[in-house]
Amino acid sequence: MPQTFDIAIIGATGTVGETLVQVLEERNFPVGNLHLLASIESAGASVPFRGKSVRVREVEQFDFSQVRIAFFAAGAAVTRSFAARASAAGCMVIDLSGELAAPHVVPEVNAAVLDALKTPVQLGSPSSSAVALALILAPLREQLGLVKVNVTVAMAVSALGREAVSELARQTAELLNARPLEPRFFDRQVAFNLLPQVGKLDEQGHGSLEKRLVSELRELLELPLLKISVTCVQAPVFFGDSLTVSVQTERAVDLAAVNTALDSAEGVEWVEEGDYPTPVGDAVGQDVVYVGRVRTGIDDTCELNLWATLDNVRKGAALNAVQLAELLIKDQL
Amino acid sequence: MPQTFDIAIIGATGTVGETLVQVLEERNFPVGNLHLLASIESAGASVPFRGKSVRVREVEQFDFSQVRIAFFAAGAAVTRSFAARASAAGCMVIDLSGELAAPHVVPEVNAAVLDALKTPVQLGSPSSSAVALALILAPLREQLGLVKVNVTVAMAVSALGREAVSELARQTAELLNARPLEPRFFDRQVAFNLLPQVGKLDEQGHGSLEKRLVSELRELLELPLLKISVTCVQAPVFFGDSLTVSVQTERAVDLAAVNTALDSAEGVEWVEEGDYPTPVGDAVGQDVVYVGRVRTGIDDTCELNLWATLDNVRKGAALNAVQLAELLIKDQL
Repeated sequence: MPQTFDIAIIGATGTVGETLVQVLEERNFPVGNLHLLASIESAGASVPFRGKSVRVREVEQFDFSQVRIAFFAAGAAVTRSFAARASAAGCMVIDLSGELAAPHVVPEVNAAVLDALKTPVQLGSPSSSAVALALILAPLREQLGLVKVNVTVAMAVSALGREAVSELARQTAELLNARPLEPRFFDRQVAFNLLPQVGKLDEQGHGSLEKRLVSELRELLELPLLKISVTCVQAPVFFGDSLTVSVQTERAVDLAAVNTALDSAEGVEWVEEGDYPTPVGDAVGQDVVYVGRVRTGIDDTCELNLWATLDNVRKGAALNAVQLAELLIKDQL
Repeated sequence: MPQTFDIAIIGATGTVGETLVQVLEERNFPVGNLHLLASIESAGASVPFRGKSVRVREVEQFDFSQVRIAFFAAGAAVTRSFAARASAAGCMVIDLSGELAAPHVVPEVNAAVLDALKTPVQLGSPSSSAVALALILAPLREQLGLVKVNVTVAMAVSALGREAVSELARQTAELLNARPLEPRFFDRQVAFNLLPQVGKLDEQGHGSLEKRLVSELRELLELPLLKISVTCVQAPVFFGDSLTVSVQTERAVDLAAVNTALDSAEGVEWVEEGDYPTPVGDAVGQDVVYVGRVRTGIDDTCELNLWATLDNVRKGAALNAVQLAELLIKDQL
């Protein structure tokens, strides 16, 4: 009988948690027992796995010594409360919340980091936009010499969970039916609008997601001094994050070489000029980040511009986390 | 009896043309006879002005010697065909199409350009995003020293006219009702999606609107060598263009001084940190560009980041054009 691994998913009822269950099944991850966990408010729901219905239980009661791997797809508070308990019980912890001070890994980019880790392992799966940028910029790092990365992230509402998805649908329907709009989840109208602030800002005016992107991207690219300017904008899109990226480079951009590198990069689907990828039409449901509109500056040869889009819940979160788990168990199979 | 000016509006049935008529009325522009003109397909419609209904006639038949000022809010082909005829008849021409090789002016920024103009005057009203950037960056030019401007423009569909507005509404309704989507005006789904390409690209991959923004902004700021990186993205927003802007500066950014300059800048409404402006909630229907999320780089003191939004049809087009006409007639009243 082949070896299997007992798994816990904390935050199993969220958009990312449910996708984690799907991706484990799709990729035939050697799951033994699957424990779906959530806070007391969400416990009791059921999630399908391998043709059966798995009941979601309360994380508070869970004995982490029952499992080998724990995925934390929960909010900050739950992750902080229970990740240490999981590690103390000897679990390998994969954190998707950004809360743990664990090394962040995108398997196609910096899998080598795992060699130096001590057990019990804690790993961070980076934010969706950091995954996208790392996949695209890592293969270009040497040929271009990255000086500065300017990025605008247009975030899908699903990044904020199921309630945000429902709210965009509800607001849109109310507006189309000319009914008065009463924002609930967001602090104002998000349908047919753009909100230039996601979450809270620090005293300098930077958003927590913006700071997370900067620190994760520097870590993933192993460029601790890379200059990064980022603005995260909430877009009226259900699924799929999109990024406009302008990179200042040390060396003049050889566009043919850039295109070749992107076309052969792992985890990246390069779209030729003349066509362009979009979140809905291309990225959603897919296992790669799409990149298009690759071009130099209008009259700056040391500038590279491009557009990228990826499924924020899948490639940007759940799939990357499962890929991390696959790396962790590789030596043990 | 006060002096009045006979006016022609070419492209009077479009979103910008109709708004021109409204703005002339609202601002009590001394309009004598108002001639509304359009291509043969749109002639015959009626547009309200000062409580009366004005019939739209065919531009082909029009004698431009009847009017003092002609606003061209038509497409490229119509503007190319008739602007020269208007100038030959002695008309002052204000072009909103970007087709004429006329000086571009934003009254709050470079009105002085008008002093050197020869009659018959031809003036260009810049693209909406160039208006926004000029209004915001002109007051900061001296204190910061602008090295490079990185901008992502999220364009409202109304920039492409009434058909694009209907198409976003139609696509959204079909998706909410789970009916199959058949894109007509756009080449794919624009509802709940983002399209990273607006119009055609040149051989280097730059869009015509992107190139227009670069050349107009350099002209408006009188900085012909300013480095500008721009991506225009089509957003599922009906009205209101939005811009994320990151500026590389010569001198360290003094944020208090920047905020003071923006707060007192003409044509600009500065929104303090803690709040933020959005196209739907703030910009639409207003006469100013809103600016918010003003902050320095995360660890780059020579970087200024901000967000801007303006009514692309009104402040970004019709209002700026009427302000130009007000300047042109000032000495003649």
